[in-house]
Amino acid sequence: MKARVTVTLKNGVLDPQGKAIQGALGALGFSGVDSVRQGRVIDLDLAESDPAAARAKIAEMCEALLANTVIESYAIDIAG
Amino acid sequence: MKARVTVTLKNGVLDPQGKAIQGALGALGFSGVDSVRQGRVIDLDLAESDPAAARAKIAEMCEALLANTVIESYAIDIAG
Repeated sequence: MKARVTVTLKNGVLDPQGKAIQGALGALGFSGVDSVRQGRVIDLDLAESDPAAARAKIAEMCEALLANTVIESYAIDIAG
Repeated sequence: MKARVTVTLKNGVLDPQGKAIQGALGALGFSGVDSVRQGRVIDLDLAESDPAAARAKIAEMCEALLANTVIESYAIDIAG
């Protein structure tokens, strides 16, 4: 069972990395870039074959390790 | 115009970060995790309003800065 977890900063949380990318894009001559925010994608390949069980297990993984739930939110997409 | 760029390592490229996450998940008691690969998502908000022009501009940004096209591939999703 393949799944993708997308972890992004919650709204309102300052994203210095995004600001740095925005600055670099400006320096490279790209105008009209109003905002840039960076997050992570984590592609998982699980032995679990039941989608609901896989989703529950991945949510546990997110809460335990994959996301800092104080400042980040996560979305789980189960493939197939 | 909002868009999301997803940057992931090309197949065959070793992902030490993914391996580290996989190891940590195992140490936390999560079994059945066959593989973990990590990438980046970059959420852009552009002044550009034409989707095709925005896609072309973002592709240029990816080639110039957002992705290391030697080892990474990128996907562009235009919102709306």
